[in-house]
Amino acid sequence: MKFNGRNIFVHPRAKLGRNVKIGDNAAIYDGAEIGDDAIICNDVAIGEPLAAYYRDPNYENPPTVIGPNALVRSHSIIYAGCTLGPGFSSGHRVTIRENTIIGERCSIGTLSDIQGSVTIGNYCRLHSNVHVSQTSSIGDFVFLYPFSVMTNDPYPPSEDIQGGRIGSYTQVGVHAVILPGVQVGENCLIGANSVVRKRLPDFSLASGDPAKVVMDVRNYVVMGKGKPYPWMSRFERGMPWEGIGYETWIAQGQLKRDE
Amino acid sequence: MKFNGRNIFVHPRAKLGRNVKIGDNAAIYDGAEIGDDAIICNDVAIGEPLAAYYRDPNYENPPTVIGPNALVRSHSIIYAGCTLGPGFSSGHRVTIRENTIIGERCSIGTLSDIQGSVTIGNYCRLHSNVHVSQTSSIGDFVFLYPFSVMTNDPYPPSEDIQGGRIGSYTQVGVHAVILPGVQVGENCLIGANSVVRKRLPDFSLASGDPAKVVMDVRNYVVMGKGKPYPWMSRFERGMPWEGIGYETWIAQGQLKRDE
Amino acid sequence: MKFNGRNIFVHPRAKLGRNVKIGDNAAIYDGAEIGDDAIICNDVAIGEPLAAYYRDPNYENPPTVIGPNALVRSHSIIYAGCTLGPGFSSGHRVTIRENTIIGERCSIGTLSDIQGSVTIGNYCRLHSNVHVSQTSSIGDFVFLYPFSVMTNDPYPPSEDIQGGRIGSYTQVGVHAVILPGVQVGENCLIGANSVVRKRLPDFSLASGDPAKVVMDVRNYVVMGKGKPYPWMSRFERGMPWEGIGYETWIAQGQLKRDE
Repeated sequence: MKFNGRNIFVHPRAKLGRNVKIGDNAAIYDGAEIGDDAIICNDVAIGEPLAAYYRDPNYENPPTVIGPNALVRSHSIIYAGCTLGPGFSSGHRVTIRENTIIGERCSIGTLSDIQGSVTIGNYCRLHSNVHVSQTSSIGDFVFLYPFSVMTNDPYPPSEDIQGGRIGSYTQVGVHAVILPGVQVGENCLIGANSVVRKRLPDFSLASGDPAKVVMDVRNYVVMGKGKPYPWMSRFERGMPWEGIGYETWIAQGQLKRDE
Repeated sequence: MKFNGRNIFVHPRAKLGRNVKIGDNAAIYDGAEIGDDAIICNDVAIGEPLAAYYRDPNYENPPTVIGPNALVRSHSIIYAGCTLGPGFSSGHRVTIRENTIIGERCSIGTLSDIQGSVTIGNYCRLHSNVHVSQTSSIGDFVFLYPFSVMTNDPYPPSEDIQGGRIGSYTQVGVHAVILPGVQVGENCLIGANSVVRKRLPDFSLASGDPAKVVMDVRNYVVMGKGKPYPWMSRFERGMPWEGIGYETWIAQGQLKRDE
Repeated sequence: MKFNGRNIFVHPRAKLGRNVKIGDNAAIYDGAEIGDDAIICNDVAIGEPLAAYYRDPNYENPPTVIGPNALVRSHSIIYAGCTLGPGFSSGHRVTIRENTIIGERCSIGTLSDIQGSVTIGNYCRLHSNVHVSQTSSIGDFVFLYPFSVMTNDPYPPSEDIQGGRIGSYTQVGVHAVILPGVQVGENCLIGANSVVRKRLPDFSLASGDPAKVVMDVRNYVVMGKGKPYPWMSRFERGMPWEGIGYETWIAQGQLKRDE
């Protein structure tokens, strides 16, 4: 239904792997390289040209790499200069600006807006409408929920950009804000609507504005549920430990760390 | 201007009622059924295929029903398996995922994101950029304002999804968050930026994080305005009591309740 | 890459200036007038018809003016009846509804949603996903950051719309909410996640919910940075004082004020 070969633009210098599908009305711009078995849905732009394109007659579009088995849903825009790892998937109308590097099997939800020069590790999930400002950095297995924001300008407006950092396994609740340059540790849980104003150590359960550490997340007890954090023993859908369990996966030495 | 018959895809098994208009670049996918006098604007997708479509060669698209007199504005995406009632209208770039049931004469604003398996009653209005998570439920005559969110995962990430419920006539302010599984009563007014962490009884005026009941909304007095809530006696644009007044409409026994 | 002349709709009564570029799949509707050297990217709609268009057979589209040197990025929708000044630029998927007047060299970020009958001065920057409700007014050199909102309905739902006002040079942090009818002074700095419930005088540094004046922004000292506000002496990218400095520019008498 979506792949009828209608009104597609593929630049002569774009490279398509084996068995790539391109949806109707999509545009694959100069320098894009799309891995085997990737699916680029309708109305998507891959290798979107940077601002200089519009005014510089000598503009050259930087290369864009979309890994194998990617699924980019309709109306998304991936800028030139991005590298998205194997198994990447997106919702609809996602924007990923230039020079963003995303690892393996990440998913970026509908309407999310990655502002460029962002680094995201492996197996991360950004839900709908997450905003990540320039030069932010995100570890592995990090989940961000709707309307959460990583900011980068401590004295707006300024040129003194300081992207923050979120450590691996951390969960960031809906409407949470990470202020510029703030380091959030690994395995943290940040409550809905929190404003994280300073560094959070690993295993923080933090909440409020300013976000305060309520307890070590490992001590968090839920009636009838035990201790839900760290979460890796109880959640495996789409994770590399799916089917074998996190402990076995760790014992097999397959953990990749980004630091 | 918008209906020039250019670059339109209509699947052979889609059914169009009388006097349906389809905008340029729109796609009407397999199993879609569009009611009489509906207007589907440019770049809209009706019956958007589910995730399984991309990998399952035996995939069959579930039926999608768009009621008569609908107006779906440009760039919106309505997934297969949805049923939208008569007089439905949307803003631009709305996403409504699979198995969502929406009653009569609802409007869903620009950029709103309905995550699927959601139930919405009649005459509801979601303003711009409202996010409703899976399995959430909304009564009749409910209004949600920009950036408000209904969440569903109490211990993220988990598979223990608990959609919340908002009762009829309730108003949910900008940036308000309803936490997973929370029941909001009828005729409530929830202030801007509130986080509703537990059940609110009918007629609550609630505000803050955690949202607390400030008073019975019927006692809320505004200088020079009297008591503005319940709001049905003073607002009728687009409501079924338009021109006759809420009290007359109730007296005529036309009230539909969803519970 | 983006300007291949494919699948473009230009209404016979639209007027294009010299050297205007129109991207693929764009639609320029009746009454649109586009200034010299403007760039309208792919999938953009200029002069989007108002709601009456869909039902009124005698509908006439109001004129839309896009100034010279504009850059409207892809998938944006500019309604009929808008006037956007010289050097306007937008991100992707911006919506600007009818009767909005925007001055010189403003930029409106990706996904921002201007609800109509809004007035914005000169050199303003709305970052991504800013929501401005109907009848709001914004001065010159105002910056709004992601997910900030100007609201307009004091007793929702009502017909008693009261758009707020933000004075020149003011900075509005991420996720901040301006409540209906509230006047924010000039040169204010509003913290992330604040809810501004009443008038703020000029030079307020305000934060929290309800937003309180923490100090005069001119007294705000940052370790190692001195006093960063007012910000005009330390930031000039894209401002009219770029290259000469704010003080020189003021001394030259070039300041335009909107009141």
